[in-house]
Amino acid sequence: MKITGIEHVGIAQVEIESKSDFWQTILGITDKSSEVISEQGVKTDIYDTGQGKIELLEALDENSPIARYINKKGPGIHHICLAVEDITTALAELKEAGIELIDNEPRVGAEGFLIAFIHPRSTGGILVELAQKP
Amino acid sequence: MKITGIEHVGIAQVEIESKSDFWQTILGITDKSSEVISEQGVKTDIYDTGQGKIELLEALDENSPIARYINKKGPGIHHICLAVEDITTALAELKEAGIELIDNEPRVGAEGFLIAFIHPRSTGGILVELAQKP
Repeated sequence: MKITGIEHVGIAQVEIESKSDFWQTILGITDKSSEVISEQGVKTDIYDTGQGKIELLEALDENSPIARYINKKGPGIHHICLAVEDITTALAELKEAGIELIDNEPRVGAEGFLIAFIHPRSTGGILVELAQKP
Repeated sequence: MKITGIEHVGIAQVEIESKSDFWQTILGITDKSSEVISEQGVKTDIYDTGQGKIELLEALDENSPIARYINKKGPGIHHICLAVEDITTALAELKEAGIELIDNEPRVGAEGFLIAFIHPRSTGGILVELAQKP
């Protein structure tokens, strides 16, 4: 497969609105967009550095993966997302290599990207997302 | 300050050599370098996607910040590093804004970058590094 870069880093926070002061005003990452992804139970503020985005994630409800993550580990860096040219080929290669996937097929994530998560059991304990630009 | 991108994501692992199979062979991130940074008590394998690096970190001894992190939280994403044009100006601006720093002055990190860490108390609970290219 062809990994083309770090697409974003996902950061779990109890609430994200008050964090814009740090990312937008103090660090000066002014390219900000916001999105609600109901199927994943999250809302997100995305700060684009131009070379990789910071995706702040807030749970919409207690069943959200972000709520469960924060209950277990506290706020922190939740996942890393790598940009990939062709996610269908990538997932086929990962399966062939015996890598455990959370998503066996790509689904639509934030900003319309086709995404899939690799299970931390196959990555050294971290959550890795792959994303193909729409 | 001018943040120019995600320089790398730092990942704490108990040992890093066996992880090259996932990052280098399976994901195909073949641009790999290795370094020992004695002052920080770590050795690191750096996988460069071309747009952001993955920095796997292994403790050299039990007093290493990486050993303490793993003892407390287990292997996982340890920090995010943002590239900045001028780290001296950036640190001055952060101090002016009342942001708590771990490093009040830049020091030399992996690959000769000038680096400084911001305290998680000022970032929403995550460890943020700034780095200026040498």
